[in-house]
Amino acid sequence: MKAFVTGIAGFIGAHVAQHLLDAGWEVSGIDDLSGGRIENVPTGAEFRQIDCNDSLDELLQPIAPTAVFHLAAYAAEGLSHHIPVFNYQNNVVATANVLGAACRANVEHFVFTSSIAAYGHPKSGQPFDERTPCHPCDPYGTAKLACEHHIQSVSEYFGGPRYTIFRPHNVFGPQQNIADPYRNVVGIFIRRALDGQPFPVFGDGSQTRSFSYIDSVAACIAAAPTTEQAVNQTFNVGGDQPMSVRELGETLAEVMAIEPAFEFLPPRQEVQHAHASHAKVRSVFPAAFENEIDIRTGLERMVAYVRQHSVPEPTPCPSAIEISDKLPPSWR
Amino acid sequence: MKAFVTGIAGFIGAHVAQHLLDAGWEVSGIDDLSGGRIENVPTGAEFRQIDCNDSLDELLQPIAPTAVFHLAAYAAEGLSHHIPVFNYQNNVVATANVLGAACRANVEHFVFTSSIAAYGHPKSGQPFDERTPCHPCDPYGTAKLACEHHIQSVSEYFGGPRYTIFRPHNVFGPQQNIADPYRNVVGIFIRRALDGQPFPVFGDGSQTRSFSYIDSVAACIAAAPTTEQAVNQTFNVGGDQPMSVRELGETLAEVMAIEPAFEFLPPRQEVQHAHASHAKVRSVFPAAFENEIDIRTGLERMVAYVRQHSVPEPTPCPSAIEISDKLPPSWR
Repeated sequence: MKAFVTGIAGFIGAHVAQHLLDAGWEVSGIDDLSGGRIENVPTGAEFRQIDCNDSLDELLQPIAPTAVFHLAAYAAEGLSHHIPVFNYQNNVVATANVLGAACRANVEHFVFTSSIAAYGHPKSGQPFDERTPCHPCDPYGTAKLACEHHIQSVSEYFGGPRYTIFRPHNVFGPQQNIADPYRNVVGIFIRRALDGQPFPVFGDGSQTRSFSYIDSVAACIAAAPTTEQAVNQTFNVGGDQPMSVRELGETLAEVMAIEPAFEFLPPRQEVQHAHASHAKVRSVFPAAFENEIDIRTGLERMVAYVRQHSVPEPTPCPSAIEISDKLPPSWR
Repeated sequence: MKAFVTGIAGFIGAHVAQHLLDAGWEVSGIDDLSGGRIENVPTGAEFRQIDCNDSLDELLQPIAPTAVFHLAAYAAEGLSHHIPVFNYQNNVVATANVLGAACRANVEHFVFTSSIAAYGHPKSGQPFDERTPCHPCDPYGTAKLACEHHIQSVSEYFGGPRYTIFRPHNVFGPQQNIADPYRNVVGIFIRRALDGQPFPVFGDGSQTRSFSYIDSVAACIAAAPTTEQAVNQTFNVGGDQPMSVRELGETLAEVMAIEPAFEFLPPRQEVQHAHASHAKVRSVFPAAFENEIDIRTGLERMVAYVRQHSVPEPTPCPSAIEISDKLPPSWR
């Protein structure tokens, strides 16, 4: 079993690659290192620095992977309003390029990480499950939903590859990029705490998320090609413990043994309560959740990791800002 | 009132530009001439040959248009399975580029032609209206739906521009490209008849469409920015006369005074019956349908136009085929 992982030097990619290696797969992967770090690539995996928009046939066809895990993305949801061309180039066109190469290499299974951003802002207030109609509200969610439709139509039209789509939800944990000012609230908070700065919060911090520790998420993704019930299926994946952004900051401050301090910024247009039902993923991948840990324990592990590693320089957005109107001042 | 029309040398673009000129707008536009013809650009409109993926700020900001009509697309739905990267680059990324330039030029209204391909293949068999959930089944429909989501999210996030989205349905008429072997069944049939060849049909020709004469469609699109009830709305637009592809061929043969002859090709994966409800568009744009003509009369006008103009050389697809598996032999 040979796996090819895009975004292998990124947070989720590195964890998925490690799970695959642990399960006996041969693993190779690519990353453009725009957000990932080469240190993240697990020992035992082959690595090439290459962009997902480049020609991949020469790389993929000699490998002849059983499965492609397309985890590379530029996943800054809020910023995507301000870099739409870059967003679609790197999320939609790149996915079509990777999947096209996978088709030409006769890959059997294509695994894709979408996002709960694909749902947009459903009105019900209930946790949304996989049948909830999708109406994305930002370019990032729009791109992810388009990728889902594309993958499904390719698989149906060409009679393959099989696919599994995951919509993860605010994933955090060791190896996450804590130097990106545009995304990953847990990483941003940790980085600020290390610098002795307050936690920046858009609005009053009452917006809630189900922060999800990486381990169960990566375990599901890695197991998809060998799980019969995951064939041609879409899954929400993440934690079931809603927490406000403010409570996240307070919990993290306890874990880091500091006084919580917040910098309240003007609210931005974002979903107030984002909660997904995970009944389907827990039913199909029960083993992935056997050792699930709570958010506080996850934060302890992430902080321990960060304290044992050098803090990277801030990661600039690889794109120039395309539309600067309404750009939060903290992002300028 | 100043209008900027992308795809102005294309079929729908040229007609919309003429309607705008007739209504007193100043009109300028662009086209890359990959499918359009410079002869289509109406007298009185300013024209520049430029690609929608190029930088448009230097062009758009001095014009300062009131409205942008983004009609440029690579609209070969069936072929899009085989040129996915090209499809997303020219339909999604290009739309984000045009809309970004429109935002920076403070355009008030953005008009976009989507497609009924955005619906995919709804199961009901009923005519689909604008509230029917969209689940596109090919890269072209996926791209159009992504553009719709993008336009809506931009308008909401930035507080403008206002938008109107149209989903046209098998539009035909004078000035249509009859030299493109991949799209526009009416044009393909006329071209074949002129060459003394049979009409190529995928399957048995029993699939039905509501072929729509251009005039009413272009009238609605041109009137959108000045129609209060069209602000931030999506409309199906087209004819209400279902006709099978085989019946289309028989009617066209009568109009052209030839014996109908068909070349039956293996069926391709396509929707069997595509019919949209047009109640909404007819209610909001009643004037556009006052002089509506039936399909046969439309075919007569199109054939008359074709007979008065030189028949162009076949238009090759501007992209190399990316995935050749299942490519219909007639497209090789």
